[in-house]
Amino acid sequence: MKKTLLALSIPLISSMAYQASADELKDIKAQISELEERLEKAEQQSSEAKSTADSFEFHGYARSGLLFDEKQHGAVGTGPYMTPAGRYNGPVGRLGLEDDTYVEIILSKNITHDDGSKARYTVMVADGVETKNEWTADDSSINVRQVYAELSNLSSFSGAFRDATLWAGKRFDRNNYDIHFFDSDIIFLSGTGAGIYDVKPTDSWTTNISLYGRDFDDVESTNTDIENYILNVNNYFGDHWQFMFSAMTSPDHDETGSDLATQGIHTLLAYHMDLDSGFAKAGVIYGSGLGGEPKAIGAKGDVTEDASTVRAFAYMVTDLSQDWRIAPALFVENSDDRYAKGDEATWASFNVRLANELTQNFEMVYESTYQYMDLKEGSEEASGGFYKVTIAPTFKLNTDGGFFNRPEIRFTASYIDWDDDLNGFGDTLEEDTFANTPYDGGTWLFGAQMEIWF
Amino acid sequence: MKKTLLALSIPLISSMAYQASADELKDIKAQISELEERLEKAEQQSSEAKSTADSFEFHGYARSGLLFDEKQHGAVGTGPYMTPAGRYNGPVGRLGLEDDTYVEIILSKNITHDDGSKARYTVMVADGVETKNEWTADDSSINVRQVYAELSNLSSFSGAFRDATLWAGKRFDRNNYDIHFFDSDIIFLSGTGAGIYDVKPTDSWTTNISLYGRDFDDVESTNTDIENYILNVNNYFGDHWQFMFSAMTSPDHDETGSDLATQGIHTLLAYHMDLDSGFAKAGVIYGSGLGGEPKAIGAKGDVTEDASTVRAFAYMVTDLSQDWRIAPALFVENSDDRYAKGDEATWASFNVRLANELTQNFEMVYESTYQYMDLKEGSEEASGGFYKVTIAPTFKLNTDGGFFNRPEIRFTASYIDWDDDLNGFGDTLEEDTFANTPYDGGTWLFGAQMEIWF
Amino acid sequence: MKKTLLALSIPLISSMAYQASADELKDIKAQISELEERLEKAEQQSSEAKSTADSFEFHGYARSGLLFDEKQHGAVGTGPYMTPAGRYNGPVGRLGLEDDTYVEIILSKNITHDDGSKARYTVMVADGVETKNEWTADDSSINVRQVYAELSNLSSFSGAFRDATLWAGKRFDRNNYDIHFFDSDIIFLSGTGAGIYDVKPTDSWTTNISLYGRDFDDVESTNTDIENYILNVNNYFGDHWQFMFSAMTSPDHDETGSDLATQGIHTLLAYHMDLDSGFAKAGVIYGSGLGGEPKAIGAKGDVTEDASTVRAFAYMVTDLSQDWRIAPALFVENSDDRYAKGDEATWASFNVRLANELTQNFEMVYESTYQYMDLKEGSEEASGGFYKVTIAPTFKLNTDGGFFNRPEIRFTASYIDWDDDLNGFGDTLEEDTFANTPYDGGTWLFGAQMEIWF
Repeated sequence: MKKTLLALSIPLISSMAYQASADELKDIKAQISELEERLEKAEQQSSEAKSTADSFEFHGYARSGLLFDEKQHGAVGTGPYMTPAGRYNGPVGRLGLEDDTYVEIILSKNITHDDGSKARYTVMVADGVETKNEWTADDSSINVRQVYAELSNLSSFSGAFRDATLWAGKRFDRNNYDIHFFDSDIIFLSGTGAGIYDVKPTDSWTTNISLYGRDFDDVESTNTDIENYILNVNNYFGDHWQFMFSAMTSPDHDETGSDLATQGIHTLLAYHMDLDSGFAKAGVIYGSGLGGEPKAIGAKGDVTEDASTVRAFAYMVTDLSQDWRIAPALFVENSDDRYAKGDEATWASFNVRLANELTQNFEMVYESTYQYMDLKEGSEEASGGFYKVTIAPTFKLNTDGGFFNRPEIRFTASYIDWDDDLNGFGDTLEEDTFANTPYDGGTWLFGAQMEIWF
Repeated sequence: MKKTLLALSIPLISSMAYQASADELKDIKAQISELEERLEKAEQQSSEAKSTADSFEFHGYARSGLLFDEKQHGAVGTGPYMTPAGRYNGPVGRLGLEDDTYVEIILSKNITHDDGSKARYTVMVADGVETKNEWTADDSSINVRQVYAELSNLSSFSGAFRDATLWAGKRFDRNNYDIHFFDSDIIFLSGTGAGIYDVKPTDSWTTNISLYGRDFDDVESTNTDIENYILNVNNYFGDHWQFMFSAMTSPDHDETGSDLATQGIHTLLAYHMDLDSGFAKAGVIYGSGLGGEPKAIGAKGDVTEDASTVRAFAYMVTDLSQDWRIAPALFVENSDDRYAKGDEATWASFNVRLANELTQNFEMVYESTYQYMDLKEGSEEASGGFYKVTIAPTFKLNTDGGFFNRPEIRFTASYIDWDDDLNGFGDTLEEDTFANTPYDGGTWLFGAQMEIWF
Repeated sequence: MKKTLLALSIPLISSMAYQASADELKDIKAQISELEERLEKAEQQSSEAKSTADSFEFHGYARSGLLFDEKQHGAVGTGPYMTPAGRYNGPVGRLGLEDDTYVEIILSKNITHDDGSKARYTVMVADGVETKNEWTADDSSINVRQVYAELSNLSSFSGAFRDATLWAGKRFDRNNYDIHFFDSDIIFLSGTGAGIYDVKPTDSWTTNISLYGRDFDDVESTNTDIENYILNVNNYFGDHWQFMFSAMTSPDHDETGSDLATQGIHTLLAYHMDLDSGFAKAGVIYGSGLGGEPKAIGAKGDVTEDASTVRAFAYMVTDLSQDWRIAPALFVENSDDRYAKGDEATWASFNVRLANELTQNFEMVYESTYQYMDLKEGSEEASGGFYKVTIAPTFKLNTDGGFFNRPEIRFTASYIDWDDDLNGFGDTLEEDTFANTPYDGGTWLFGAQMEIWF
């Protein structure tokens, strides 16, 4: 009986416990159900928020700062293209030479269709001024540099076109690349047109095909725009090799009766390599006629039909140790009959930038550049070298981020000098290079500058 | 006894089970409580994210592309207003004629007060250039076309004003509408001013009242801006009928001693209809004096006091079948004494655009346009027709989206021709229409273009 | 036996209940686990959405509206600097005098490193035009007024620099402040340079140090930018006191051979006070040489080496009662030898703005201004007063938000008048003040305007 009572008592407690648990379970289920509803709403809200936030993108580039010489004169005519070779795209290391405020404002809109088809629209407004003032309406160069639309992931695209991106509008070609330290694109293909990226004829061959138009001028007599049309085919083979070919035609360009080029070709062969802590690139460019302008393909109307240019480059970016980074770059160009028959121009620029990471937010940056040039235009000649050394204490969010982590706020001191023989070159030409620069012989330049891209 | 033992044993197990369950319930409750806390934070975060994302809006319009003729000359002077009738707002079908890069960047800020009162601020920066180059500082037309603020859902507004929106600033009127295929607004009311939308005197009557100012010029002698003030009342009756009335006055406009108009009226009666797969609109406009400019209400200062213009339009957009769409449009205008007494101008434009949806991302678009004109300005006369046919292979995210789904990337081939009698019209006038066009007689035009709005 | 049976039966039920509960618990646990997973995703999504949304900021200022006189002439030459004292930064109350469309578009990018280090980039595009038209390419002043980067929360910064913000680029100084009702900064420090904010040498002393450059012009003969370099130290002591000191040098500024200043100093002593329902500020400025321009520090190149200016201000913003607000402001300046030796200019402006909150969305705003001036430039003299009263019915989201809640949509009626003695001042000077204004004697001005900042 005792046992039976026990048996009775325990089940009673158990039964009471069960009653409580049933209510609790009901509560719990209600709570869970409520949580589910709230979560669904939160999911939808965060999905909408993400979708809205992702549909817009803001990107940009900007540099702005002060630059003055040892006598507190404002620097004039400096910049990476300050030497006589600048007229032939021959840059020197940019660090500590830039006096301008240049800004690019890039706005993008992403539109995604239910089936995953994607459209992307990009517009870029840019401006560049020398003045330090903050109201620059009179000096403003503000303009729309890019405005284009892209279509990708199209369900109607298959085979070699499956991953292709179709585009039209005004743009910098997606695959342009530069040597940042020279502020120089290797090639700068741009203009208004249409094309297709990432066509894959085979597994190891990717090709981009574009048609770009550029404007040279008007032919007043015929009321015709002189436009240059550039057909560009840009191929990548495997992981390393790039071969780009451009053919261009500007049939109205001989209206002026001169020996200006009306056609041209431009070729680039390049090798790209990823390194453990950086990358390396090297290549060679050859162009003739309108392609005699080797950088901004088809963009310059003042080259002769005999113009012929060879350009070569090699540069790399890599870590030297945990705290040191290095970026050496070599750029060489030889140009015949570029702006007039009989002219010849050769330059070679070597630059090295070094960074010593001292704390997470501070590094010392050093840059040294040497440029040799041998230029002959009609009776004008210049032969000699330009030298620059710069030291730049630099602040940033993360020095570990390497050479391309931005923003940077830097203070610079540079010493520049050049061979006397270079002075005066261009006096009788449209662009008067060193005559723009009041520094006859060497000078110190001091600066403070911010640079950002994102 | 066995049963009793059983009775004992089961409750014991049950009791043990209960013990476990109590811990689990405690666990579960803790988990739920933790989930609730996390959910609350996630809700708040997603609410903040949504609120931040929604407070900003990016909208835009852009078109950009290449256009050249059969000899690879850049197209000049083309566009929907290329004919002599263009001087009288007489457009032809736009497809395959546009050579420019035009872009509108629209940024909006939404501010919502706790009680639901809403403010919305909009600024539009726009630019239009012909050049294909990507640095257009010298040709840039970049400017601020709109900047205005709106207040709505105001708790102090009630009765007929309950749903009203108050606005002030510089803007395109909210209720402007166009015939897209002509690149022509039916009416284009714009300027700087203030007004109120969506006042509802009765259930079936909605009215908008605005005061806009426009600038014609300066009167040098009196140091006064010549401004034209336009009072506009725009009424909607039921679901279909629109009646808009504008009265305008520019008291300083006779300072020049000419017979320029100083006052004007402008009226529009229109019928709007939704179709199963599109819409239809038709209407008639009459204006006199300053209202003699029938499209851009009160925007033109060069119309005479006797100017009198009648304009009529009818167009529709509809599906023909599952894969075919059509958009016919008719535009007619007659103008007396518009720019000088005794002048008379009549034009009629008919355009039809057809689309054949071939895949989700590709359609063939066809456009055909015919414009007749009979123009007399002083001793200048032009009478005859302009013809255009265009074929445009077109890529987009979704061809099912209809005529207004964007972006589109299109390739165009157009043949244009016109009656010889039209050549030279305008030679002695300020705008020299066909003399801007080097195509004497017919020509083919080839193009590639993107167009987007969002 | 009965009991035993009971004992048996209850445990059986209990046991069954337990079985159900175990399943349910399993279910519940699964549900919770699923919720947890979904919540984690939602958390991540909302975190990403928030991060994306927060990384971009859109800010702006804009005003736009109509202003015409009693004869419906467009207002010309009005605005807070319309009087002869305007040439000496002497403003009158702005309400009801502004005829322009001025807009600032400000875009910011926030970049946060994992360790909390922050970078912030800001670019401002601005435009100001008088025309009421909506296509203003010919009148456009659009330009980039600010573009700068800031670094803060740097882990490498400690001690007095722990809360410091480092910046470089083109900017308006962060700590500028204005008397909104005069549309006048107390001081307006701006230009291109670099600096550091919020250095805290002691608990009660915060200091900002900046170097700004400004451009005056070019020296053609030496091919040098004439730049003025301004070293600015801005100190805050305790909660109330501000002492700012600027030294400036423009060594090339005497190249013109005139008596233009090549150096200058500028000082500001100010007292800031928070009130229960507003704030009050008062202070005094002294500057000499290039600092003789007391507002836009170092921005004006046309001041003489003997220029010496004293400026004082006092203003406050406060509630008078639940429905009334008041903002009185006093501004006084005396300037010797400012633009030429021997000149002397004194002005004093008193303005009071009153607001009567009638509903949540509507208030009546009143403004009254009196400006006295006594100006002598060579043989030109002007002495007397300018008077203005304005009444402005104003709509906004929330009148409780005070004087600085925006947007506002306001309608204004102003009566302006001035002493005859002021007419013609400046006729022979570069800026011809009242001669720009066709109102000889008093006139009514009527306007409609929106104003916003966010």
